[in-house]
Amino acid sequence: MPRLRARQLGLTPGDLPTGPRNAISDVDGVRVGHTTLIKGDGPLTPGYGPIRTGVTAILPHPGNVYRAKVRAAVHTLNGYGKAFGFEQVRELGVIESPIALTNTLNVPRVADALIDYAIQQNPDIGITTGSVNVIVGETNDGYLNDLQGRHVQTAHVFSAIEQASNEVAEGNVGAGTGTTCFGWKGGIGTASRVLPIELGSYTLGSLVQTNFGRASDLVIDGVPVGRLITPDRYSDPIERGSIMIVLATDAPLSSRQLDRVVRRSGAALARVGSHYGHGSGDFVIAFSTANQVTHAAPHDAASITITQTALADEVRVIDGLFRAAVESVEEAIINSLCMAHTLTGRDGHVRYALPIAELLAGFGGD
Amino acid sequence: MPRLRARQLGLTPGDLPTGPRNAISDVDGVRVGHTTLIKGDGPLTPGYGPIRTGVTAILPHPGNVYRAKVRAAVHTLNGYGKAFGFEQVRELGVIESPIALTNTLNVPRVADALIDYAIQQNPDIGITTGSVNVIVGETNDGYLNDLQGRHVQTAHVFSAIEQASNEVAEGNVGAGTGTTCFGWKGGIGTASRVLPIELGSYTLGSLVQTNFGRASDLVIDGVPVGRLITPDRYSDPIERGSIMIVLATDAPLSSRQLDRVVRRSGAALARVGSHYGHGSGDFVIAFSTANQVTHAAPHDAASITITQTALADEVRVIDGLFRAAVESVEEAIINSLCMAHTLTGRDGHVRYALPIAELLAGFGGD
Amino acid sequence: MPRLRARQLGLTPGDLPTGPRNAISDVDGVRVGHTTLIKGDGPLTPGYGPIRTGVTAILPHPGNVYRAKVRAAVHTLNGYGKAFGFEQVRELGVIESPIALTNTLNVPRVADALIDYAIQQNPDIGITTGSVNVIVGETNDGYLNDLQGRHVQTAHVFSAIEQASNEVAEGNVGAGTGTTCFGWKGGIGTASRVLPIELGSYTLGSLVQTNFGRASDLVIDGVPVGRLITPDRYSDPIERGSIMIVLATDAPLSSRQLDRVVRRSGAALARVGSHYGHGSGDFVIAFSTANQVTHAAPHDAASITITQTALADEVRVIDGLFRAAVESVEEAIINSLCMAHTLTGRDGHVRYALPIAELLAGFGGD
Amino acid sequence: MPRLRARQLGLTPGDLPTGPRNAISDVDGVRVGHTTLIKGDGPLTPGYGPIRTGVTAILPHPGNVYRAKVRAAVHTLNGYGKAFGFEQVRELGVIESPIALTNTLNVPRVADALIDYAIQQNPDIGITTGSVNVIVGETNDGYLNDLQGRHVQTAHVFSAIEQASNEVAEGNVGAGTGTTCFGWKGGIGTASRVLPIELGSYTLGSLVQTNFGRASDLVIDGVPVGRLITPDRYSDPIERGSIMIVLATDAPLSSRQLDRVVRRSGAALARVGSHYGHGSGDFVIAFSTANQVTHAAPHDAASITITQTALADEVRVIDGLFRAAVESVEEAIINSLCMAHTLTGRDGHVRYALPIAELLAGFGGD
Repeated sequence: MPRLRARQLGLTPGDLPTGPRNAISDVDGVRVGHTTLIKGDGPLTPGYGPIRTGVTAILPHPGNVYRAKVRAAVHTLNGYGKAFGFEQVRELGVIESPIALTNTLNVPRVADALIDYAIQQNPDIGITTGSVNVIVGETNDGYLNDLQGRHVQTAHVFSAIEQASNEVAEGNVGAGTGTTCFGWKGGIGTASRVLPIELGSYTLGSLVQTNFGRASDLVIDGVPVGRLITPDRYSDPIERGSIMIVLATDAPLSSRQLDRVVRRSGAALARVGSHYGHGSGDFVIAFSTANQVTHAAPHDAASITITQTALADEVRVIDGLFRAAVESVEEAIINSLCMAHTLTGRDGHVRYALPIAELLAGFGGD
Repeated sequence: MPRLRARQLGLTPGDLPTGPRNAISDVDGVRVGHTTLIKGDGPLTPGYGPIRTGVTAILPHPGNVYRAKVRAAVHTLNGYGKAFGFEQVRELGVIESPIALTNTLNVPRVADALIDYAIQQNPDIGITTGSVNVIVGETNDGYLNDLQGRHVQTAHVFSAIEQASNEVAEGNVGAGTGTTCFGWKGGIGTASRVLPIELGSYTLGSLVQTNFGRASDLVIDGVPVGRLITPDRYSDPIERGSIMIVLATDAPLSSRQLDRVVRRSGAALARVGSHYGHGSGDFVIAFSTANQVTHAAPHDAASITITQTALADEVRVIDGLFRAAVESVEEAIINSLCMAHTLTGRDGHVRYALPIAELLAGFGGD
Repeated sequence: MPRLRARQLGLTPGDLPTGPRNAISDVDGVRVGHTTLIKGDGPLTPGYGPIRTGVTAILPHPGNVYRAKVRAAVHTLNGYGKAFGFEQVRELGVIESPIALTNTLNVPRVADALIDYAIQQNPDIGITTGSVNVIVGETNDGYLNDLQGRHVQTAHVFSAIEQASNEVAEGNVGAGTGTTCFGWKGGIGTASRVLPIELGSYTLGSLVQTNFGRASDLVIDGVPVGRLITPDRYSDPIERGSIMIVLATDAPLSSRQLDRVVRRSGAALARVGSHYGHGSGDFVIAFSTANQVTHAAPHDAASITITQTALADEVRVIDGLFRAAVESVEEAIINSLCMAHTLTGRDGHVRYALPIAELLAGFGGD
Repeated sequence: MPRLRARQLGLTPGDLPTGPRNAISDVDGVRVGHTTLIKGDGPLTPGYGPIRTGVTAILPHPGNVYRAKVRAAVHTLNGYGKAFGFEQVRELGVIESPIALTNTLNVPRVADALIDYAIQQNPDIGITTGSVNVIVGETNDGYLNDLQGRHVQTAHVFSAIEQASNEVAEGNVGAGTGTTCFGWKGGIGTASRVLPIELGSYTLGSLVQTNFGRASDLVIDGVPVGRLITPDRYSDPIERGSIMIVLATDAPLSSRQLDRVVRRSGAALARVGSHYGHGSGDFVIAFSTANQVTHAAPHDAASITITQTALADEVRVIDGLFRAAVESVEEAIINSLCMAHTLTGRDGHVRYALPIAELLAGFGGD
C-alpha cells in the first residue's frame, strides 16, 4: 500500500477546514526545503556512517529575512534538547533568518551554515551592522543514523534553502529522515487550518519533525492505535525522543499573542498520546508573516513611530488560532507517520512504517 | 441513576494502578475538606444570591504547615485567572499554608481567612518572625452563582480546614459547587496513581476544580463524547472557564523536579478535549510531602547543612511520575463530571449532570 | 531641617531631564492617592495596634480602567512577596484596575476593596461580562505597625482612589507610612524622566514603596552614605524588606517592550546599594497609557483588526526608556528617604529619618 | 605603568574577603584556559582578518563532566545574544561539559568543538547513551576583530581546555581578546569571595567576558570614572555590547538556589554603571561543584534514592552567596578593565586600556 496523508485515509482530526495544500505553505510566502542524506549500510562506524539524516529549512517569506524580520515566539515544552537561537527571540520577539531543523549533534554545523547564508545575503553583518541570530531545532536520530558524524554540512543547508518551495514533502525527508515516532518510522509532517471569515479568514500552518512517543501510547484521531498494533521487535521503554514544531500564520499577532499560540501545541502532543516524557525535548517556534520589522530603521525623528494592524478582539480570533494550532499540529504528526516509509539504518536497526491497512482496521474500516 | 466514579462505570484511563482511595489523600497525610454554600433561588440579586459556591481546602500534612513547609512548584498553563501566592512559591520552592480553592472574586476573602488561620496557629507571624504566603486558586462559577457576592467567608474557610479528612467528596462540593465543565455540571474530582516497586512505589494524587471546556470537544477515555451528547439549551461558545489542579506526592522531589511534573498536567486537559482556550485560567500546584523544610532553622554554625533524600535516577522515576500526573488528572476530571449532579442556579440557569446512561452508550455499553 | 526632595538637596542622579513635577504623574493622566493610617502608641496588641500603615492607589488614566485597559508588564526581581494579580498581566498584557500598594498581610483586604470598586464602576462584572483582575503590591511594615491587624479597610482604599491627583505626596504616606529603607525611615517616593525630542519626547515616571536594604550598604548618588552614617540603635542584619516599583509611560510600548523596561529596575536598586537580598520581595509593574485596549470589543467581522501606533525603531527609544526607568527609580528611592520623617511605632520601635545635614556632609557640602 | 588588578591598585569593592587567588579557581577543582588569536593588521578582509579573538574554557572539575555533571542554573539578563545550551540547563539543572566563551558568530564552531571533545571523552555518546549538551557564551568583538571569519577552530577549543589551570589570566586573553568595555579595552576578569565560618566558609568565584557599557557611564568602586576620563576618539553611542558571567561555588546549592544566585549578577553590572542597554546580551551561568550528578545511574530498585547534603538554613547562607556573587562580579569586571592592554584591530580601530594613573587620580590618589 502506498503511503498516504491522513486525509487520504479518511482521517480528519479536528473541526476547522484546511488550507488548499494542507501545509505550512498555505501561509502565503512560506516555503520549505529538505536535504535528505541516506548513505551506507551495516555496522556503525562512528563518524562515517551509515548516514540517515538531513536538514529541513523553513523560509518565513520570499525576501531577505534579516532585512524584514518576522514577529515570533518560541516555547519549550520540555527543555531536554539543544535548540539554538531561542534567547534572542524571547527578548526581541523576532526571527531574522530561515529556520533549520536537523539532528541533535548537528545543530552547531547547521547554525554555522545559516550564518554563512546570512552573511552572503547581508555582507554588512558584523562589520557595519550587528550580528545575526539563527534558529536551529533538532531531534535525535541516533537509532538509525551515525549521530556522531554530524553529516549535515554547509552545502546541504544551502541546498535545502535553495530548493524551498510551497510543495512540502513529508515522511523520511530532511530532518525527518532518521527519526522515530511512537516506535514507528517518523519524519516530517505538515498541515494547516483556515479560520472562518468572521474570524478574519486567517491561515495557520504547522510543520513537525517527529521523534517522540512510546509505541503503546499512540492515539490517532481518538483511536488508541498503540494498544492494537506494535512494531516488530520493539521493546517499550519510557517515552523518549523529541519533537520540533514550527507554526506560521498570516494573522497580525504580536509576539505576546504568538507566545500564547505556541503554548497550545502541547495539547496536540497529548492528543496523539504523549505525556511529554522526561527524555523528550519538545520545542515550538511560531512566526507571523504580518507586520514585518525592518532591520535598522532610519534614525530620524520623523520616523519614531509607525502604524500597524493589530487584532481588535483578542478573544475570538486568538481562540480560533489556538484551535488551529492544536488541530494542525495533531494532523501534521499523523501525516509524518502515515507518509514515512520503513527504513533500515546503522547496525541493521529498522524502523517500520506505520501499517496503513492495520491502522484503518483499527478504525473499523478496511 | 446514581452518580458514580469513573472506575465504577468501568472507565480506567491510563495504565498505572490507583491508590486505595483513588484520591489525593492516598498520599499519606494529605487531607481535603469542603464547605458547600447553596442558598436561595430565582433571579440574581447581585451581592445577595442565589448562592452556588464554596471553598475546598487541601492540607499537605497533619502538622503546622508554616513550621514544616512542603517543597512545591506552581505552573500557569494559561494565566487568565487570579491565583494567589504563586510568586513566592516560584522563588522559594515551598508552600507554607493549606491550599484553598474557591470562586474567582472570592480569592481575596479566602486568602484573608487563610492568613487568620496561619496567625492563629503561629501567633509570631509578622511580630517576631516573617509574614505568611497563602495559596488560593479559583474558577469562575458566575453562571450559577452570585459571583459579586463573594459569599465564602472566614468561617467557611476554617470549617473546610477543620473538616478535612482523607475521604474526599467529589462533584458539587466546596469550590466545585457552582462550576461548569464541557457544558455539563462540573465540580471537584480526585484520583491517584502508584508507581511500581522498582520505581519506588511512590504515590501521586490529584484534585481538580473543573470549570472549563466546550461541550462539543469533550473526550472521555478516548471517546469523543461531546460529538454524541450535548446539554439541553446549551449554546457552544468558545472554550471558557478554568481549571485548578493540585498534585501531591510522597516522592522526594526537589522543587525543580516538581516543576517538571506540574507542566505535564496540560496533557491531561488535552486528553479530555481542551485546547487551553483563551478564557480558561489553568493553574497547577504541586507539592511533595517528603523533605519538609523547617521554618527558621537554628542559626548556629553546626547546622549549616542537613542531609536529605533525593532521587538517584531522575530518568525513570520522574517519567513514571509524569505519567501518574497525566493519568490521575485525566481521571480526576472525569470523576468531577461523573459525580456532579444537575444544579439550578441564579436566574434559573441550569447545568445538567453528564448523563451516565448515554455516556455508557457512547462506549458501546449500556 | 525640613524634609526636601533629592533635587532640592542638589542631588541629580542620572543624565536625563525630569518632567515638570518630577513625579509619575508627569505621564499625562496618571494620578496617585494615599490613605495614611497612624493610630495608637506603645506596646503591640496584635490585631489592634499601634497602627502605622496605609494604602497608595495609582490610577493609570482618568477613565474607567476596566473599559479602557492599559498595556502592562510585571516583573519579579525576587519573589519573596505576595503581589496579587500578576498571572493575568503576564498572560494578557493589560491592567484593568487601579493599582494599590499596602502592607504584606493586608493584600487580600485591599484586593477585595478593588473588586468592590470595579463592580461599582462596572455592575456587569461576573454577571454579563467576565471577572476582574485587580493589582496589589506590598511590603512588610511590621517593625513599626501591627501587621496582623490588617487595618487597611475598604473605605481606606476608596478614599485613596478618590483623593488621587497629580500632586504626589512622598515619605510617610499611604503604603509608605510604616516602611524602613536601609535602616532609615522609608516610604513613598516618585520621580520622572523625559526623553529628548529626537526620541519622541516620551515621559516615563516611577513611584516606589521602599522597605529594603541594609544600612551599611546605602549609596546615594554614588556616595557610600551607609559607611558614613548609621541609624542609632540599629543592628545590621542581612538585607531584608522589599520594594514595590510602579512605572508609567506615554510611549506606545507593547507588553513585550514594557517587559524589557521593567527588568531594568533592578539596576536602580543596585545603584542605591541593594543586592536583592534573600528576604526582599522586589516587584515591578509597568504600564503605558498609549494604545489602550477596549473591554469586549464588538464581535462583528468588520472590526477584526484595528490600526495602532508602535515604535518604528526599538533600538534608541527603548534604550532611552531603559535609562529613564533606572534613573527615575533611583531618584524615587532617594526621594522616599529624603522626604520621610522619623516615626515611632509599636513597642517603641523607631525608624529615624535620614539626617539631611549629615547626608550633605557626606557629599562634601554642608 | 604595568597593568594591575583592582586590589593591587588599592580598590576593594564590597565587604567580603577574597579567596587566595581572588579568582574563580578558588573554588576547588575549577580551572580556566584560554586560546588567544591575534593575527594580521590593517584593513578588514571579511573572512580573513585582522583577527583579534579567542576562546576561554571553564572546567567545572578535573574529572569527566559528562559522567559527573554539576548542578547549574543559567539566567538571561538581556536576551540579545546567542548563548548555546541554555534550554537543557533550565530543564535538568545540570551542566555536562566544559563551558566555553567566544565571539558571537563563532558560537556554533566552538559548540561543535565541545561536542568533539565530549565524544572523545565519551565514545558512547549518541550510540549507546544519549547526546550531550554543551554550553557556549559569547560577546561581539567585531569592532576590532574579523567577526565574519569565525577564526576559533576546533584545535583552539581543545587547546584552551588542555591548558586550563587554576592560574587565570586576565585582560586581552581568550574570549576577551577583542572586547570593549565602557569604551575602553575590556577582556577577561575574575575574582572570588569567601563566606565567614558561621556561614560555612563557602567560596564563590566569578569570571567575566566584558564587552558592555557606555564610556560616560563607567563607575569604579563608587567613583563615576566615566565622567572624568573618556577614551580618545570615542563617540558615546547607546549602551551596546554584552557580558558573559560565569559563577562557581562549592556551596551545596540546588539548581533552584543557583537560579536565585545568578539573578543577583545584574546588581554588579549596575554598580559599574550599566543599565542593561538594549543591545547588550547579558547572560549568567552558575554551577556548584557539590552534589555532582552521575550520568545514567544504575537502574536497580535498590538505588532509587541517594542521600545528599543541602543547606539547612537558606536565609543567611544564600544571602551571603548573593553578596559574594555581586561583589565578585563587580571586581571581576574592574579586573578585566585594569588588566587589559590597548589593542589595535581591524581597520586601525583602537581600544585604549583604561589609564591607571588617571583612574587613581579620580580616586584622589596618585
